[in-house]
Amino acid sequence: MINTAIEYEEMLSVLGRRLQPNAIRKLTLLLGSKEVISLAAGAPSFETFPVPELAEIAARVIRDRGRVALQYGPTRGQSALTEAVAGILRSRGIEGCTTSEIVMTTGSQQGLDLISRVILDPGDVALVELPSYIGGIIALHNAQANLVGVRQDDDGIVISDLREKIDRARSQGSRVRCIYTIPNFQNPSGVTLAAERRNQLIDIADEYDLLIIEDDAYFDLYFTADASRLVPLAAIRPDRVVYLGTFSKVLAPGLRTAWLRAPEALAAKVELAKEGADLSSSVLDQTIVAESIREGLIERRLHELRRFYQLRCAAMLDALDRFAPAGSRWTRPIGGFFILMELAAGVDSAAMLPDAIESGVAYVPGQPFFVDGSGSNTLRLAYSKESTDAITDGVERMCRVFQNASAQASA
Amino acid sequence: MINTAIEYEEMLSVLGRRLQPNAIRKLTLLLGSKEVISLAAGAPSFETFPVPELAEIAARVIRDRGRVALQYGPTRGQSALTEAVAGILRSRGIEGCTTSEIVMTTGSQQGLDLISRVILDPGDVALVELPSYIGGIIALHNAQANLVGVRQDDDGIVISDLREKIDRARSQGSRVRCIYTIPNFQNPSGVTLAAERRNQLIDIADEYDLLIIEDDAYFDLYFTADASRLVPLAAIRPDRVVYLGTFSKVLAPGLRTAWLRAPEALAAKVELAKEGADLSSSVLDQTIVAESIREGLIERRLHELRRFYQLRCAAMLDALDRFAPAGSRWTRPIGGFFILMELAAGVDSAAMLPDAIESGVAYVPGQPFFVDGSGSNTLRLAYSKESTDAITDGVERMCRVFQNASAQASA
Repeated sequence: MINTAIEYEEMLSVLGRRLQPNAIRKLTLLLGSKEVISLAAGAPSFETFPVPELAEIAARVIRDRGRVALQYGPTRGQSALTEAVAGILRSRGIEGCTTSEIVMTTGSQQGLDLISRVILDPGDVALVELPSYIGGIIALHNAQANLVGVRQDDDGIVISDLREKIDRARSQGSRVRCIYTIPNFQNPSGVTLAAERRNQLIDIADEYDLLIIEDDAYFDLYFTADASRLVPLAAIRPDRVVYLGTFSKVLAPGLRTAWLRAPEALAAKVELAKEGADLSSSVLDQTIVAESIREGLIERRLHELRRFYQLRCAAMLDALDRFAPAGSRWTRPIGGFFILMELAAGVDSAAMLPDAIESGVAYVPGQPFFVDGSGSNTLRLAYSKESTDAITDGVERMCRVFQNASAQASA
Repeated sequence: MINTAIEYEEMLSVLGRRLQPNAIRKLTLLLGSKEVISLAAGAPSFETFPVPELAEIAARVIRDRGRVALQYGPTRGQSALTEAVAGILRSRGIEGCTTSEIVMTTGSQQGLDLISRVILDPGDVALVELPSYIGGIIALHNAQANLVGVRQDDDGIVISDLREKIDRARSQGSRVRCIYTIPNFQNPSGVTLAAERRNQLIDIADEYDLLIIEDDAYFDLYFTADASRLVPLAAIRPDRVVYLGTFSKVLAPGLRTAWLRAPEALAAKVELAKEGADLSSSVLDQTIVAESIREGLIERRLHELRRFYQLRCAAMLDALDRFAPAGSRWTRPIGGFFILMELAAGVDSAAMLPDAIESGVAYVPGQPFFVDGSGSNTLRLAYSKESTDAITDGVERMCRVFQNASAQASA
């Protein structure tokens, strides 16, 4: 039985969480429609959606290929799309990647759910970064994994802590099955796994026979030349890595089109699991995405898209430099959507959220991203949704709330 | 851990099955592209897809509402759509149905997967009809249910057998959790649950505290006035019934848009499960379907759609009357897509499939639909895909293969 409402509440109370993941998601969706500057929503800006192009493509693929685009399709996905994805993955360094390694999914969230269901037995240890993406945490949790957090610093996973956590779990008799990582511009921290750590991580996975679940949702959205040269873990060791990618950030998330790439035998299991889960993802969405790739619509917009988010990131970093209270620190992403802010120890970001919303700005308290229950003095800031002016304004308002709270605390 | 390839093979060999469900699905998809008359594919005819209308709607909703239609959406579904579905369900007799009872899903297959995951613990007994829909069997199986088959006759579930199976399972210490039923024009049998049996089924569910999973994919596709007055189980006892419906058969399956309706507290659990499974179904598909409902595109095509399938059903019944070998029998559906044919005892429909395909016609062997391993002398015939002429021709070719086989057997 999947973990449901009651179990979630139990888990959350065990972890000392104040807000349920679901509540956070609802909050961020809600905020999309309110007069609040949202530094909470982890979604791409609608300004980046190629609306007229997609309208034209959608009408055309239905008119010209409706017999296929409106019909049931193969569980692994439309062949034009899986072939295009295999090409994308070869271009990212996964040599010889073929369609037999690929399953298209309803967003990367489904990839996380399926791989968790396929590889995990109840009680297996799944290692996750501290902090990590809530959707990944939920998927692993729903497969009844025992989630163990591994520390990150500004270069990503701390290898010594990884080794320590594995050894401890094994000494307690647990099977450590996998590590879930978002190496590039992580959600929620904005941290990137350094190149030498990538090799170390793979060595450890080899040593302890772990599967690596690599969630690379933000791969294309880098801001620096260095970041553009980052190599996926799956390119280094394809046989140890399940690699997840998505068109949500570079085209449109409402199309719910992502992929899971795994070693062939594992991909076949995922296909079977997906057949039971939904037969296939939206065939229309897949056809639209395949046509968008074929026409070069995605590729030719990437440069502009990077610039779009980079400007917003710079605005947020600049505002934090100007307004952040003493004793706080934050990450400096080289891509993606997110900055993790850490307030002085003992400050509770969740407790200040109502005041912040009252002041017209929202963020996501950090604690739910930490499976060990830490992080109550952290928060996730997204620069993906608002304009640069709104970001500056929002950060200023937010920091004023933080200042007031600490002034009151010390008064 | 979900059951994957190896477990499937084990299960299938236990059940004495020759063909894996996945293999059958691949076969039916494959046949769609071959020069074979397919009485196998359980898909709506592409001739029924309103191609120009959907092309126009898709372009329009992207152009006018791309900010929403291309963005992430709420897990339960787009509100315009859940409101429309609640209205549809009230019109089907589920009084006072509100959006709080509804979760939109990626096809009914996802509804089956989610409800199975939410309600079942490993080893729980799930009752299924003999035969039943393979996708439902897979979803229940993936949740590690113990599947127990209940006999059907021409009026659907045999109530005495249902009671006997429940009593037997309970006497063996099992928890009997649910019964999965397709009351209208069942897949694969074409059988419809008689009105008085519906009340008896609910009485038994009450007596033994079972949840009923009612899969009503074919509700709108009735052929007779009597069939048009059939009342969903969920309309009789909404608190005991999870009700699944879909737009796949009346609009287009490639849009992967279906719903699950459950008592409010259970719907909330399904929503949480869905959040972990894929965050939401395709937002574009949902927006297109909502607009199709609003414009009356679905409603105004239903009459024609019923006529379309009724003519094909009549052609198949007529051909069976003319060509079927002595000793065979078949169901006479009053709606839907399917006829179940039963050959003389001892005849193996799977063994004859290669010859049939060689002769230019395909069907689905019946055994995989029977969880007790019976049904090797049955086959599923779909009249949903081919023209009336092709159906007549296909049935004649198929029956010739059956005749030859029995002539050889007796020679």
